[in-house]
Order: sequence, then C-alpha cells, then structure tokens
Amino acid sequence: MKFYDCETAPSPRRVRMFLAEKGISVETVQVDLGNQEQHSEAFGKINPFHSVPALELDNGVVLNTSVGICHYIEAAHPEPALIGADPMKRGQIMDLDARIEQEGFLAVGEAFRNRAKSFKNNALVGPHQHAQIPELITRGKLRTQQFMHWLDQLLEHNEFIAGSDISIADITAKWIKVEPEEEQVHLNRWFSEINSRPSAKV
Amino acid sequence: MKFYDCETAPSPRRVRMFLAEKGISVETVQVDLGNQEQHSEAFGKINPFHSVPALELDNGVVLNTSVGICHYIEAAHPEPALIGADPMKRGQIMDLDARIEQEGFLAVGEAFRNRAKSFKNNALVGPHQHAQIPELITRGKLRTQQFMHWLDQLLEHNEFIAGSDISIADITAKWIKVEPEEEQVHLNRWFSEINSRPSAKV
Repeated sequence: MKFYDCETAPSPRRVRMFLAEKGISVETVQVDLGNQEQHSEAFGKINPFHSVPALELDNGVVLNTSVGICHYIEAAHPEPALIGADPMKRGQIMDLDARIEQEGFLAVGEAFRNRAKSFKNNALVGPHQHAQIPELITRGKLRTQQFMHWLDQLLEHNEFIAGSDISIADITAKWIKVEPEEEQVHLNRWFSEINSRPSAKV
Repeated sequence: MKFYDCETAPSPRRVRMFLAEKGISVETVQVDLGNQEQHSEAFGKINPFHSVPALELDNGVVLNTSVGICHYIEAAHPEPALIGADPMKRGQIMDLDARIEQEGFLAVGEAFRNRAKSFKNNALVGPHQHAQIPELITRGKLRTQQFMHWLDQLLEHNEFIAGSDISIADITAKWIKVEPEEEQVHLNRWFSEINSRPSAKV
C-alpha cells in the first residue's frame, strides 16, 4: 500500500488524521504540488485525476478521493471504528459527515476559492476552469457562520460530534479548519480536545 | 422501522431505489410537502431538520440524510452489497459516489435551484434562505455537461459505474435524472439498462 500525500496541502490531511486515529502507518510518497508534480505524466499514470490524496493498493488499484480512501481503511481495519461499529452508528455518523461536508466544507471552500488570487480561474475543485463569482464570497461566509452555530449547539450535548467517541465526522470538521467565535463555548471545548490529540499534528 | 417519504419529491427516491435493490420493504409514511407538512410541529419532533427522507429506527433514533440512511441499510442488510462487499470495492464505490455527488448532483442542483421561480429565496438545500445567483445557472449547466462527458467515458469500459455490479454510485447517478446527449452512446446504454430495472419505477 502506498499513500500519495502532500504535507502542505489541505486535502490529504483528512486521510492522515484518519490513519493516525487508526494507528496505521503507510509507505508515503510526497507529491510536490508547489512544482506542479501532480500534473506530470508519471503521476497521471498513477492517478488520472492528477490529485492528492491517492492510495495505491497492493494489487495496483488506486483510490483517489479522501472519502473513498477512508472507507477502504475502515473496512480493511475496523478497529477502532471511525465510521460506526454497528449499523445505527454508521448511519448516524454518515448523516453528520454528509452535513459537515455539504454545509461546512463547501461553504468554507466557496468563500475561499472565490476570493483567493491564486484561484482566479479555478474557483471549483477539479480539472475544469471556472471563473470566480464575487457573490459567493459573501454567501460562503454567511453559510460558514450558520454551520458553526449549528455545530456549537450540537456539541452542547455530545462530547464528540457523533457521541462519546471520535469518528470521521470529527476528522472532517477539524479538517475544515474554521476558528470558532469566543462565545461558541461548546465548539471551543471540542476544538481544544481535538487539537490535543496526536492525530491533530499529522 | 418507519420510512418518511414523499412520492413526488426527488430526495427520498434515492433511498427508495436503494431499498428496492436490496429487496426490502419498510413501513412508509407519506409526508405531504405540497401542503408544507414537513414544517409542522409534529413532524419537527420526528425530524428536527424538517426534511425527507427520514428513517426512524425501532429504538427511536432518526436518520435524516439519504447518505446516512443508505449506509445504515447497507450495514444492517449486507446482501446484495451496494456499497462494496470487500474493502477495495467499498473504497472504489465511495470514490465514484463522492465524485457523482460533487460534480453531478451539485451541478444539476446549482443550475436548477438558481433558475426555478419556486426557489427564489431558497437557492440552497437546507433551512436557511439564500438568494438565487444568475451566474450559477450557466456554471451549473456547463458543469453538468462536463460531468456527463466524464460518465459517458467511464461507462465505455464498465457495465455499471463501479464495474460489473450495480452499486449506490449507479443509484446516485440515476437519481440525478439528467438526459444524455444522443451521441453519448455508453451513457445511453447504461440509462436503458438502469431504467429497465424494477427499482427505477419506485
């Protein structure tokens, strides 16, 4: 198994945290995004989507989304469970993970990629060029606030996002990297807890 | 187990197709979205997100996204596998399902919800009001074309989206309901096959 990573890029971090919480170490290859190595012919043969993270299995199959890679790892190494040890927990965790992706991750991405100069004609993740739309900066920021408010309320009752144990939902939320407001006490408590784990350092 | 459905709404159809492919029938309650029944106090007690689909388990826990519900059903009723019978297939299927959601489902939704009069201040799924942005109609249509082109190419080599068996990735793609261009022969072949299955009628 070989993990194609880039230490300075946000996307592979979700997989690194997932692996760290599982206690698994994998042979890792750094792909130099700064020098556009992901666009090389050689890397295109490994991952035709020219993106990291990618996980090459021993039989040569390559997984190429952080979601797909995490599900593979969960099924191959069930303990400790991060996507639910039983059907009910799997459903609840995937409910929350979907909501965090849709309402958190996409909101933050919308505000950032429509503003940053380096994403001028690349406002959406993926191989196609799309121009920035200034209205999406405002909308993305508003959606981010709404998301943080929802998460703060949820964490009033739950130690971790899906209950008493850490799950992929916490990893996805931590990965988004949004700073809570001072008055969001539950979110702040959760952030300190997550940030104190060894997996937050990877 | 009780399934909160609305026959005329698109979102619950993904779960209905998933259940049909599993050969499972569930006690079903129709929620009358036409008369805003989802916003009633009574329904809010069942699903605080005021949305369908929702699945109430026998212990009272309610799942409330189509993704979470499908993962619950997959874990509770593993046969026939729709999210992968082994770790590698689960990873590959989730890779493809994530791509179909991100690049297909969101693209179609973007074009539709920013145009339709009935979504004037409700351009995003969820409880918050967001104004329509006309530029997203054009962008959504372009992204949809790019998505269909990718899917057509993928289906040149695969009978179903993730290989020789139907999976949640096919259900998600069928659920999006985009009509292929005449020259997209692989996509047309796949559409005919999917549409001839009993699960396409639910």
